[in-house]
Amino acid sequence: MQSSPLLENLIESLRCLPGVGPKSAQRMAYHLLQRNRSGGMELARSLTAAMSQIGHCQHCRTFTEEDSCNICNNPRRQSSGLLCVVEQPSDIQAIEQTGQFSGRYFVLMGHLSPLDGIGPKEIGLDLLHKRLQNEKFTEVILATNPTVEGDATANYIAELCVEQGIKVSRIAHGIPVGGELEMVDGTTLTHSFLGRREIHY
Amino acid sequence: MQSSPLLENLIESLRCLPGVGPKSAQRMAYHLLQRNRSGGMELARSLTAAMSQIGHCQHCRTFTEEDSCNICNNPRRQSSGLLCVVEQPSDIQAIEQTGQFSGRYFVLMGHLSPLDGIGPKEIGLDLLHKRLQNEKFTEVILATNPTVEGDATANYIAELCVEQGIKVSRIAHGIPVGGELEMVDGTTLTHSFLGRREIHY
Ligand SMILES: [Zn+2]
Ligand SMILES: [Zn+2]
Repeated sequence: MQSSPLLENLIESLRCLPGVGPKSAQRMAYHLLQRNRSGGMELARSLTAAMSQIGHCQHCRTFTEEDSCNICNNPRRQSSGLLCVVEQPSDIQAIEQTGQFSGRYFVLMGHLSPLDGIGPKEIGLDLLHKRLQNEKFTEVILATNPTVEGDATANYIAELCVEQGIKVSRIAHGIPVGGELEMVDGTTLTHSFLGRREIHY
Repeated sequence: MQSSPLLENLIESLRCLPGVGPKSAQRMAYHLLQRNRSGGMELARSLTAAMSQIGHCQHCRTFTEEDSCNICNNPRRQSSGLLCVVEQPSDIQAIEQTGQFSGRYFVLMGHLSPLDGIGPKEIGLDLLHKRLQNEKFTEVILATNPTVEGDATANYIAELCVEQGIKVSRIAHGIPVGGELEMVDGTTLTHSFLGRREIHY
């Protein structure tokens, strides 16, 4: 029994966060109430703004509240000619932290999975196709996860690039097979960028 | 570099939660954006309501949005004659889960710590003193943490009880010395309740 319905609601609501069970939800609620109410209010405002205003970039599909994201808007990145294709917005963050890449991205928000009804359209490949036709890319780097689905998705996109006569490569060395790109350390990810190999057909 | 300022704000704000570092804050933000926006909005509402409306019970000082908390309002608990003194609201929750106690509580919101300027008034002992005079308690159970400060605080309150001729006991068996009441498992806490000893002066 909690001493108040609002406290019960707060503890219950905190459990929507991944990795937060009943014990930690309770600890979080008490912590905010006792020591950091202004932090709690600030978190509420950030959540409301993010959940209601963040959509997808019209160029790369990553999360942004604008039509076009910070990365796509950057002129230095526009002139690089490199496009890196990833599965998730969090993969961008992991790659950015290596400091090895200063081109643009394309975020699939998933991977091909025909059995689940996820085809080329669902992962934005019509948009990617248009970009490959309309913009001048010198190289497309395929950084999907090294899983069966990630590899199949990379192969599919590689064919699109080859059709357009664009050089295409797959990041390679160091990523454990079956692993998640997001979880790999920076050094491994750096190696996999430097060791990328062009795909020839 | 994040793709959006609102996303950066959200990740930064999530770090006000205890135990949440940069990596898990990022994972939480992406999870909510991709899979549970309604959960994120609900959490924002719960936070706002809790942070702005929850105050302290006028009887026991625990968290509540009413003048008087759910536990103090319960007639069965009012008639029990038992009062359990704890340091934190989270200690109530731990004791409730043992199912061994059905009396009322008094929450100090800390312990005596003269060097930090925390004297009897700061932990509500004037209010406790009035309650000991005005209500008919058959026993006061001191469940402060088994630390130097918790013991000193318990001794101080024991004297108040003895002055009023009220039986007073200290929970005892099983709690590791130097430990935190909140972290103890239910069985240990049950033992320490059953094995409580009256304090004689
Ligand atoms: Zn973009
Ligand atoms: Zn109360």
